Amino acid sequence: MKLIIAIVQDKDSSKLSNALVEADIRATKLSTTGGFLRAGNTTFLIGVEEDKIETVLAIIKESSQKREQYMAPPINLDSPMEATHTYPIEVQVGGATVFVLPVDSFYHF
Amino acid sequence: MKLIIAIVQDKDSSKLSNALVEADIRATKLSTTGGFLRAGNTTFLIGVEEDKIETVLAIIKESSQKREQYMAPPINLDSPMEATHTYPIEVQVGGATVFVLPVDSFYHF
Amino acid sequence: MKLIIAIVQDKDSSKLSNALVEADIRATKLSTTGGFLRAGNTTFLIGVEEDKIETVLAIIKESSQKREQYMAPPINLDSPMEATHTYPIEVQVGGATVFVLPVDSFYHF
Ligand code: NI
Ligand code: NI
Ligand code: NI
Repeated sequence: MKLIIAIVQDKDSSKLSNALVEADIRATKLSTTGGFLRAGNTTFLIGVEEDKIETVLAIIKESSQKREQYMAPPINLDSPMEATHTYPIEVQVGGATVFVLPVDSFYHF
Repeated sequence: MKLIIAIVQDKDSSKLSNALVEADIRATKLSTTGGFLRAGNTTFLIGVEEDKIETVLAIIKESSQKREQYMAPPINLDSPMEATHTYPIEVQVGGATVFVLPVDSFYHF
Repeated sequence: MKLIIAIVQDKDSSKLSNALVEADIRATKLSTTGGFLRAGNTTFLIGVEEDKIETVLAIIKESSQKREQYMAPPINLDSPMEATHTYPIEVQVGGATVFVLPVDSFYHF
């Protein structure tokens, strides 16, 4: 048994939750504060047997790895005519930080 | 020193808190999100010396293990006369998931 | 790689956040419940390489260790004239509980 702690962006949180449920893997979500350190992240606690670790890591990677996304740029309110010249900009979203911790013992009461 | 991470249902959370306080064992409670994965659970972080592990596990088990409970069944609004025939139904409540983790070092500042 | 779990008083939380950002150390903050067990605390998860552990522990200690503070005593509303006789009282604030956990493996997706 290992304990996987995965920290993902809020925007990827329900995608990851759904993927874990589908794979029949139980997880607990911890809310993060609205603070300025990694604000808007969700922490998952996932207990897994050794032979499921690779599966869980693949699910986390698939659900939340860093990727490029195109968004509409913010509209310049000072010169709204400029808006007609704007193009979508590329931004980086997602990303996960994952710790796999050893577990001395595990109980289910 | 070990770190016990215990995840219990919200409904058992204050019972467990009280039992830990009474046994003079310090704990930190982490709130869980309102998400659909184990929604309504509370996570306890409990640092303990090896010789107290059995005591803490017994307290967690006593406070939150799975048990049957009788509840009034939901009333059938379509045929309210049926309510006179209903019996309490048995539901399963509670349950705890507990990880005991090794600790390299511990500090109290 | 180690995982440092640090539990500090809310009042020291932003000081610690700032100090970690300044030292270029990433952390995740978990909110605690408003419960009566260590209510008003914040839990930090900090992944660090072994050679940074002493630095992080020093930052935590510096930001949140127990210290005396003088506060105005509460005003006695029943006999407001007493307020003229009151002196600041010494109270103990702060304090941190810190676990350093071994990590089997670490991923950044
Ligand atoms: Ni179960
Ligand atoms: Ni103390
Ligand atoms: Ni990164």
